[in-house]
Amino acid sequence: MKLSARNVLPGTVTKICKGAVNAEVQLSLKSGDNVVSIITNASVDSLGLKEGQNAWAIIKASWPILGKDLHNVKLSARNIFCGTVAKLVPGAVNTEVSLKLSQGTILTAIITNESAHSLGFKEGDHACAAVKASSVILGVE
Amino acid sequence: MKLSARNVLPGTVTKICKGAVNAEVQLSLKSGDNVVSIITNASVDSLGLKEGQNAWAIIKASWPILGKDLHNVKLSARNIFCGTVAKLVPGAVNTEVSLKLSQGTILTAIITNESAHSLGFKEGDHACAAVKASSVILGVE
Amino acid sequence: MKLSARNVLPGTVTKICKGAVNAEVQLSLKSGDNVVSIITNASVDSLGLKEGQNAWAIIKASWPILGKDLHNVKLSARNIFCGTVAKLVPGAVNTEVSLKLSQGTILTAIITNESAHSLGFKEGDHACAAVKASSVILGVE
Repeated sequence: MKLSARNVLPGTVTKICKGAVNAEVQLSLKSGDNVVSIITNASVDSLGLKEGQNAWAIIKASWPILGKDLHNVKLSARNIFCGTVAKLVPGAVNTEVSLKLSQGTILTAIITNESAHSLGFKEGDHACAAVKASSVILGVE
Repeated sequence: MKLSARNVLPGTVTKICKGAVNAEVQLSLKSGDNVVSIITNASVDSLGLKEGQNAWAIIKASWPILGKDLHNVKLSARNIFCGTVAKLVPGAVNTEVSLKLSQGTILTAIITNESAHSLGFKEGDHACAAVKASSVILGVE
Repeated sequence: MKLSARNVLPGTVTKICKGAVNAEVQLSLKSGDNVVSIITNASVDSLGLKEGQNAWAIIKASWPILGKDLHNVKLSARNIFCGTVAKLVPGAVNTEVSLKLSQGTILTAIITNESAHSLGFKEGDHACAAVKASSVILGVE
């Protein structure tokens, strides 16, 4: 299946913690970053998720919140990805921002033009993306 | 690819409107419901989306907002799915609610226990789910 | 803290309820509104969240669903913010809507143009925003 989600990041399952309804699943990405995802227990079972398994972390471009130096800020968002601004595509209301993480991984985010202006992003700038664990979908082959 | 998203709904693309950054794509689902999705133009191109094509609308269980008789309420959410409560699975913080739409299609949503109590949902009750167009991911074979 | 999220609302933690994986955290905002957020237990611990502490509720503009008189509707969304339409900025696909809440607090939402037309919002109109607890990110100094 090909997905409209701009961010389909390959990795390996490193941890699964089940609760009553939801489970917390951790992936180690090829970029070296970790991703935490909250999915239902039923999804853990139907995907047959196991530690060591290959999986994708799927993140729609409209979910990341961008900032600078977010690694120094305390946020409840479990996933903070830092890199450099690789591309900016402004539209009428929104701007598409591509961040280059390690290992050439690209993370794309859509933010409003006003946010893009107020953050003053230019290509090559350091930037970080915050993504809530409950916004990450997992996929397996 | 198998996905953790609980709602992977099959349909056919009926309309594509491109903007500067984002595009609005409409699907007609097998359940008879329509789904509107906002995705980036880049995704329309990379998926090769065309009217008449088969596609899936992918909705994570944590995104729908539930209510009663939402078809009578004016909401900005482009997608309102109505049906009957088929199953309730309470956890420590959240409850999983399954709605049965037409044609046997099931839509699953995670809401907080407090919301489940205040809505007073019981199996067989009428219920609706509101989903923003920007929360719908599309997939194609 | 500079973030791309348009809504970074200051408040004070008033309640924390932990579950197996997720916790429900309540903030009392400067605007007088309460905000409920679902975050992971791990985030409660890493932020060192305690009742009485100052914190921000962070809401990306693409997440709220707008409507009129939502305080009269039974919705599973735990957060309903009501105010008046302060500004409308239409784009090619989306419209940016700013709501003025009490105490001058502004809440910004992105909805599709078709929703903006069907709701018929004009500046000065009463309007409400529904935000799921699981969409709210928390930040602390």
